[in-house]
Amino acid sequence: MQVTKEQFIRDFKDTLHEEQQIKIVDATPRELFIALAKTLRKYYTPLWLERRRDLEKEQKKIAYYFSIEFLPGRMLETNLLNLGLLESVKEAFADLDLDFDTIKETEHDMALGNGGLGRLAAAFMDSLATTGYAGFGNGLRYRYGLFKQRIVDGYQVELPDPWFDSTGSVWETRKDHDSVYVKLYGDVYLQADDAGNLTPVYQGARVLRAVPYDVAQLGFENDTVNNLRLWDVEIPEEDELRYPTIADRRRIEDITAVLYPDDSNAQGRELRLVQEYFMTSAGLQTIIRSYLKMNLPLEDIYQKVAVHINDTHPAVAPAEFMRLLVDEYGLSWDKAWQATVKTMSYTNHTILSEALEKWDAGLFKYVLPRVYQIVLEIDRRYVADLAVKGVAPDVIEATRIVKDNQIHMAHLAIIGGHSVNGVAKLHTELLKEDTLHAFYQLFPEKFNNKTNGIVQRRWTQIADEALSDELDKWIGKEWRTDIHHLRKLNAFPCCKMKCNKKDMLV
Amino acid sequence: MQVTKEQFIRDFKDTLHEEQQIKIVDATPRELFIALAKTLRKYYTPLWLERRRDLEKEQKKIAYYFSIEFLPGRMLETNLLNLGLLESVKEAFADLDLDFDTIKETEHDMALGNGGLGRLAAAFMDSLATTGYAGFGNGLRYRYGLFKQRIVDGYQVELPDPWFDSTGSVWETRKDHDSVYVKLYGDVYLQADDAGNLTPVYQGARVLRAVPYDVAQLGFENDTVNNLRLWDVEIPEEDELRYPTIADRRRIEDITAVLYPDDSNAQGRELRLVQEYFMTSAGLQTIIRSYLKMNLPLEDIYQKVAVHINDTHPAVAPAEFMRLLVDEYGLSWDKAWQATVKTMSYTNHTILSEALEKWDAGLFKYVLPRVYQIVLEIDRRYVADLAVKGVAPDVIEATRIVKDNQIHMAHLAIIGGHSVNGVAKLHTELLKEDTLHAFYQLFPEKFNNKTNGIVQRRWTQIADEALSDELDKWIGKEWRTDIHHLRKLNAFPCCKMKCNKKDMLV
Repeated sequence: MQVTKEQFIRDFKDTLHEEQQIKIVDATPRELFIALAKTLRKYYTPLWLERRRDLEKEQKKIAYYFSIEFLPGRMLETNLLNLGLLESVKEAFADLDLDFDTIKETEHDMALGNGGLGRLAAAFMDSLATTGYAGFGNGLRYRYGLFKQRIVDGYQVELPDPWFDSTGSVWETRKDHDSVYVKLYGDVYLQADDAGNLTPVYQGARVLRAVPYDVAQLGFENDTVNNLRLWDVEIPEEDELRYPTIADRRRIEDITAVLYPDDSNAQGRELRLVQEYFMTSAGLQTIIRSYLKMNLPLEDIYQKVAVHINDTHPAVAPAEFMRLLVDEYGLSWDKAWQATVKTMSYTNHTILSEALEKWDAGLFKYVLPRVYQIVLEIDRRYVADLAVKGVAPDVIEATRIVKDNQIHMAHLAIIGGHSVNGVAKLHTELLKEDTLHAFYQLFPEKFNNKTNGIVQRRWTQIADEALSDELDKWIGKEWRTDIHHLRKLNAFPCCKMKCNKKDMLV
Repeated sequence: MQVTKEQFIRDFKDTLHEEQQIKIVDATPRELFIALAKTLRKYYTPLWLERRRDLEKEQKKIAYYFSIEFLPGRMLETNLLNLGLLESVKEAFADLDLDFDTIKETEHDMALGNGGLGRLAAAFMDSLATTGYAGFGNGLRYRYGLFKQRIVDGYQVELPDPWFDSTGSVWETRKDHDSVYVKLYGDVYLQADDAGNLTPVYQGARVLRAVPYDVAQLGFENDTVNNLRLWDVEIPEEDELRYPTIADRRRIEDITAVLYPDDSNAQGRELRLVQEYFMTSAGLQTIIRSYLKMNLPLEDIYQKVAVHINDTHPAVAPAEFMRLLVDEYGLSWDKAWQATVKTMSYTNHTILSEALEKWDAGLFKYVLPRVYQIVLEIDRRYVADLAVKGVAPDVIEATRIVKDNQIHMAHLAIIGGHSVNGVAKLHTELLKEDTLHAFYQLFPEKFNNKTNGIVQRRWTQIADEALSDELDKWIGKEWRTDIHHLRKLNAFPCCKMKCNKKDMLV
């Protein structure tokens, strides 16, 4: 993006004056950060709109990455770098006699993750945008990140980590018009119409409003802007009589309060299940809506939509997708199932079978009565189908979804999708040979490997500018978009000798 | 303000696209309201900035209206009317085939008040702006208004009334740079330096961050934009170790959760006292800071600043002002006291002496240890001063601030200010003759009357357009700014005959 230093200074001052009503001399570093972020938003918003228009026009396939964690970290430098404005903005701030680093430090880390899982998801968002793929994220807008670390007398103290203030985050856009309702609890029975079609009837269900907040995901110097959609919970106005006190309202609002509520007790586990279903149902509902705008047959949705399940937290997706296609849109079970399997894929993150998420069937039925019925039906058909094919009963029993009074979420993700991948070559091999061996024997074609990587822009370009500049000198700039170019370093003898950084930078 | 319909439509669409990334056809009425409000903000922001510049340049006196309630109601139509854009915007929406009334209805009422007190405060804000006076409001940014009324089976049900969502209110601007710290609790003792000057030393005090949110107050067709400043509470980052859990943080954040916490128990009363002090201290701190930018002597502050105490909720103001002037800025007690009395004025709202706010001295000392010392000193000097003047002991006892283990807030407001007014002629007479009779005998010059009125713009122009247009025809438009012009109606015989509206509008 071409913005001169002078133009940026004008835009930055305008934003500060017009939106925050302050002069530079009066502004705090935090206010300068907000103004800077808002200025950048103005730069990339036309690209964001254009991206959506192009995707709609070209009817391109979109992959939706569902993850309970996203750990993009601070977005300012990434966005500046990807827009190609990092250097000119730094120079502009120097001209304005403002300390860029102090301003940068006031950004609250979007710490919506615990570690690897969230960072992987954020790295995928970055790479998808940089390679130009239409890959959109779908997660939760937690009020508090994992925790804020403070070291006191040598010990770690874990504090709440609010990452936005009472005006929200500057990077997000609230999208009221994409709000959807998510139904939980209550009872469900099936009612037959004259033609014998069964329709689920909900009694006493709790309806929550899911409101999306979209965060732009910028590609590196390619004008691509993808979307990370984070869902927040609200009480529907029609339903507010159910919540006569502030405490009642907060019990609902707390669904998106923290990543990973304490699941050592029943209440915490229930909340976790609600979180997982909430983000999955909300995401799938808007995906179907958006697909239908193209006026294409719903059973072909997999041709334009891929839903990726990152770890088992969103693994209720195949069942919820079935519920939507069958109950809400009237597709036959078989057509819906075919569309579901072709739409869904799943990344496994553990070889420890005891770490694979399972839900107590009673809790699952209590929280998600209709989805529970659908899971039972998926399970019933799976068992019957394999039995007809002559699969050994112990293999069927080992791989089915509902057993021992538990819902096996990984099994649902594998059976309900067409692709299962591990995150490293060895990991995938172990999945095939051990953890998911029975599945591998049944569906070898579903298994594949996607080795996790890191994003060289954040972890080299931003993290170590001097090293990055040095690399440019030796092997050119291509490594910044395509990491394979780092192989060019092999041409230099010191690298063959496993040199350390110091040697190389002589 | 001159904005053509065509220009407005362009600006409105730009706002919707650039800030919310949506097209009109996709937008909900609520999103259209947000876009409309943001478009208006863009129109009046230059006036808001200009107003501040002018006041700074001309060093005009500013009156600050401190009130625990402000009830402006929905701002959209008021702002449109005052900008002179109501008609053209309605026409623009008709052109766009959008229903203005539906959009208008999605604005959340800024219901930061209970009734008359808050409506009075909001009406003053409106009139001050319309008459061009520099009158700024100072209150609290409650998360929830008084309550949302729903009628169920003929009975009133009171529900929480959140008036902004997780992105804040579209009318407000967060002003980080005007944040101040408010100290509560702990112990305070006085330490003498070599010269014998006493400095208060705080131990174990709790420090809260007060963050202002400013809301523009537009004058009617006069390009004047005043300011309503609402304070919110936050936990200072330096102090966050004190609040290791989300529940701990919420106990603090709840200081601004609701107007009028339940004061039937000790906890509720304490919270109320904290609210009152919090908004008073924060407001006075920024007022002094802003005055000092003019480089004028602090003891002359009353020449540029008036602080009005609306009812007793902000009546701690004289004591807090003394604390700031003496402790923080090193003024002598006598100079500080003179400045305080000349700065402060007070509106009394009740003739029931039992309804005049009093605080248990123990609670007051516990929550505001330093202010308590100052109140004792004000009281001591007041008593001594009157005794020297030969005032009868029973009069002194009846009017002093601290007695029967209670702090009498109205007494503090009367003694610490130069003006006391009732809100109707009869009310003021009753104050003089009965409720505050002893004070009236001591300080007759302080007493005066200001009869409450209503704002004809909201309650006639917006509330009844047809009536307003009819009035224009009969007596011209001047009544819209100066209500006295309504007297012209006396020239018409039907009015002398106490006509009803129907007769007049024949």
